Amino acid sequence: MIPVRGIACPLPVQRYANVSLAHGGGGRMTQQLIENVFLPAFGDPVPGERHFGAVLDLAAGKFAFTTDSYVVQPLFFPGGDIGGLAVNGTVNDLAMCGAKPLYMSAGFIIEEGFPIDTLRRIALSMKDAADAAGIRVVTGDTKVVNRGKGDGVFINTSGIGRVIAKQTVAPAFARAGDAVILSGDIGRHGIAVMAAREGLEFESSQSPIESDCAPLNGVVSSLIEAGIEIHCLRDLTRGGLAGALVEIAETAGIHCEITEKAIPVREDVRGVCEILGFDPLYVANEGRFTAFVPESEAERALEILRVHPSGEGAQIIGRVHKNTNPGLVTMRSRIGASRVVDMMSGEQLPRIC
Amino acid sequence: MIPVRGIACPLPVQRYANVSLAHGGGGRMTQQLIENVFLPAFGDPVPGERHFGAVLDLAAGKFAFTTDSYVVQPLFFPGGDIGGLAVNGTVNDLAMCGAKPLYMSAGFIIEEGFPIDTLRRIALSMKDAADAAGIRVVTGDTKVVNRGKGDGVFINTSGIGRVIAKQTVAPAFARAGDAVILSGDIGRHGIAVMAAREGLEFESSQSPIESDCAPLNGVVSSLIEAGIEIHCLRDLTRGGLAGALVEIAETAGIHCEITEKAIPVREDVRGVCEILGFDPLYVANEGRFTAFVPESEAERALEILRVHPSGEGAQIIGRVHKNTNPGLVTMRSRIGASRVVDMMSGEQLPRIC
Repeated sequence: MIPVRGIACPLPVQRYANVSLAHGGGGRMTQQLIENVFLPAFGDPVPGERHFGAVLDLAAGKFAFTTDSYVVQPLFFPGGDIGGLAVNGTVNDLAMCGAKPLYMSAGFIIEEGFPIDTLRRIALSMKDAADAAGIRVVTGDTKVVNRGKGDGVFINTSGIGRVIAKQTVAPAFARAGDAVILSGDIGRHGIAVMAAREGLEFESSQSPIESDCAPLNGVVSSLIEAGIEIHCLRDLTRGGLAGALVEIAETAGIHCEITEKAIPVREDVRGVCEILGFDPLYVANEGRFTAFVPESEAERALEILRVHPSGEGAQIIGRVHKNTNPGLVTMRSRIGASRVVDMMSGEQLPRIC
Repeated sequence: MIPVRGIACPLPVQRYANVSLAHGGGGRMTQQLIENVFLPAFGDPVPGERHFGAVLDLAAGKFAFTTDSYVVQPLFFPGGDIGGLAVNGTVNDLAMCGAKPLYMSAGFIIEEGFPIDTLRRIALSMKDAADAAGIRVVTGDTKVVNRGKGDGVFINTSGIGRVIAKQTVAPAFARAGDAVILSGDIGRHGIAVMAAREGLEFESSQSPIESDCAPLNGVVSSLIEAGIEIHCLRDLTRGGLAGALVEIAETAGIHCEITEKAIPVREDVRGVCEILGFDPLYVANEGRFTAFVPESEAERALEILRVHPSGEGAQIIGRVHKNTNPGLVTMRSRIGASRVVDMMSGEQLPRIC
């Protein structure tokens, strides 16, 4: 705690350097935290009209509603931080429903003693990510837990988006005859977070592997606006590409066959994976997705994807077969053999989002 | 971990007694946790259509959107638990916006080693509370943090409700000439949680003080449907009655005067407060609210409130004065003196919600 000098001060004084339990009490100190940290980042939805909730004026239609909590460690990693991740993660969940992200909530669970400057940095990162994705943070909440009962900060974001896809976009709608598109190289987010956590250093000539954390709503909007018949979209977070494909195959009752050599993995990512015994298929991404579209539309979808920075490495990596082996994902390896790809039981890398 | 015997078993086996990090990995174990704990409680919004988000079909209009995280300790206390609290808290935030609660998300941050049976009990408590309030849990998320980096379980709920009040209901709309209504006795939730946490025992002839945790959407709907002109609603959670009134007075720029003897406090609650040095005005409630309505409608509002179990102790506790002392709350004490009521700086009782 920084003591305040007892002299008149024309500027607002930041009285505390760290978050205390009292900042979660709903009193003056909670107000100060909101005014000093959150309002400068997110603004006041209706200026002066402090309220528990936001009131949104919505035209009739279909809306996607999603939630995710973020517990990543460390809070800052090459290519991102928990703030940007918390915004992009929910933006992407909305985009995967074929929706345009509109509004977001932000709930913070802060450990006593957490530096307020770090909290401000995270809030500003959220603001930047929200601005980039065109979503507005309209309501929030702050709780403080005792020292040793949290881990710095956890963030929950829930999002509301307007569904703009004409047909339903969902795992159950993937079907025989679909091409499986992957939007770019895989494995960077998980490796970036893991390397930062474990303090791994790679060859000094290389720049560190950065997270692919990015909003996907722009590229998804382009696919929808171009009239591509999208059956299913799925971002490749926990469980990686393999987890996503198996979940889709099981939900839709389809057999999905992918080709290993079509799946882009950066050399440095592949190298770290080989050294540490990870399979890039299972490593989490935060800016990659798979799209199931009719094979007849796949090339056009690729062209659209490749215009976007987050889709420039897009590839067709497989197809959905007729009626054979419902619920199965198989992969043709580089040497031509075929093997079953299953979901992991647990996880390779805990707390990467 | 309970080992699975290697024999054919016709019933699903609960393989783990406690939550492990792997349950948060997005793989099979996450699936099992969802299937064994969350789906039995909340159901599958669209059966078979596993997806990241819920898709809601909404008619045009105004919607309230709120979020809250719950970090209460202990997780179970007389009159409630974190599950019911997490549902009722968000139901009430929506009701305070003049909205009918419709949909809710549930995000769990679970500490490694947390008993799965306890998680199930909490999920079922959420289901009961959601059923009672008529809200549907439609989307969720589960994260697991390492042992010692959480505190059992934290829950975030975000809610969407349709605004049914004809005029805007918000702190800024409280005005001179309003009566201040309190829906019942105050102080029970905070004292119940604190007593459970500290292991306080009261006289054995008494039953323990129970939390007032309850959904307020029913009683608020009744006020709205009866055409009461409601200017402001506020539930009396963190910061208690005093915190709520000061926030309203400051936001609306009004002078609010209340009368101490009109404020119902149960004798046992008052007794515990006196012994421990708490002021019931600042103790949190989870089933109480204040309503600002024109004085001409106050008696009718009271009649409507008193029909409901959660409003049967409703009282008019004060009024809003014209233009004098904007932003001020004053209280006329039992002996006739008037004093200023301010918000607390920090909090009397941490982690009561």
